[in-house]
Amino acid sequence: MTEPVKQRRPYRSAVRDERARETRRRILDAAAARFLELGYARAPIRRIAEDAAVSEDLVFHLFKSKRGLLKEVMDVGIGGDDADVALLERPEPLLVRDEVDQRRQIEVFAAGVGAQLERVRPLDDMLRSAAVVDDELAGLRADLQLRQRREAMTTITRWIAARGPLRQEVDEAAALVWTLTSPEVHHMLTDGWGWAPEQYVAWLRTNLEAALLG
Amino acid sequence: MTEPVKQRRPYRSAVRDERARETRRRILDAAAARFLELGYARAPIRRIAEDAAVSEDLVFHLFKSKRGLLKEVMDVGIGGDDADVALLERPEPLLVRDEVDQRRQIEVFAAGVGAQLERVRPLDDMLRSAAVVDDELAGLRADLQLRQRREAMTTITRWIAARGPLRQEVDEAAALVWTLTSPEVHHMLTDGWGWAPEQYVAWLRTNLEAALLG
Repeated sequence: MTEPVKQRRPYRSAVRDERARETRRRILDAAAARFLELGYARAPIRRIAEDAAVSEDLVFHLFKSKRGLLKEVMDVGIGGDDADVALLERPEPLLVRDEVDQRRQIEVFAAGVGAQLERVRPLDDMLRSAAVVDDELAGLRADLQLRQRREAMTTITRWIAARGPLRQEVDEAAALVWTLTSPEVHHMLTDGWGWAPEQYVAWLRTNLEAALLG
Repeated sequence: MTEPVKQRRPYRSAVRDERARETRRRILDAAAARFLELGYARAPIRRIAEDAAVSEDLVFHLFKSKRGLLKEVMDVGIGGDDADVALLERPEPLLVRDEVDQRRQIEVFAAGVGAQLERVRPLDDMLRSAAVVDDELAGLRADLQLRQRREAMTTITRWIAARGPLRQEVDEAAALVWTLTSPEVHHMLTDGWGWAPEQYVAWLRTNLEAALLG
């Protein structure tokens, strides 16, 4: 199928796309800040729209609902930016895939997870609280953690298994990778036990090496 | 100090103590059932008192408050009965302490943790939900998990370290024991990932052996 209208004005369309993207980004930043400050349930869309200097109508037009807005806030938080690139096709995971030394794969992976958790944990804490009283948000968190993150951690485990033997079956090893890199365990060790971020990363690396490689 | 009144009627006093204990147990059973069925916030003390065939006044007299009642429900759930014996002085942990073979210590420990989590997890799920909207209950859960359970897991780790070398410092090893045996990780793998209880126990054993002993 041809798209004559889009093809005719490529420059203007690019400018418009960039502006639209910038507006979305401003709304997502404002939403993330207010959700973290006030909690999801108490953050009014009106305030978020004001912060982003747009109308409430535009927020609903772009994101359909407050839940839709939260979902995109989480996606951006997890990816680190609003680029439309699947999580495992970003540069850091690809380093893990392409590295040939298993110990070095785990080292790079552990450092990347530490940085990502520092960024995502506050958002996940907020989502987890909101999910207690909102079944749809519980479903969103389950999808992020039980489907997306589980699949990603299984793929990472296969990448490590592709470079040499593992001490465990891939599923069992992936369960360890998945649990030790969960927001829950990060929360326990940093907020709960008082560990510094680099202590968590060192511990993650030590234990993945020991349990996966021996 | 002598206690003439108590000394004079040992038999009647013992009967009375046993009755009082039985009444407490009935109230605690009723409370646990209602908290699990309705959630902490929605379970009325009136219903719990009715279930246990006692007055509301007696419940408040014995447990001071609804939170006090929940606290004892959790203690009984964790210990497995209402005996006033510290957790680590119960028969199962003592088997771990007295066993001389490190791999056998971990095997016994993993089986005990699996059984305990099957019992306690529903109560912990309920407490965790209630804690989201109740700071005092958040404090109770923090005390159970961050102080009591952390101390217990550190002691267990020392018992294993006493029978031979560990691959990690005791603190780092204890952090692994503490996180892998947490209600959070048990929840992720059983409710989330769909593992059977025995699969969790086998996984726990494999990973503690690998990471602690090599």
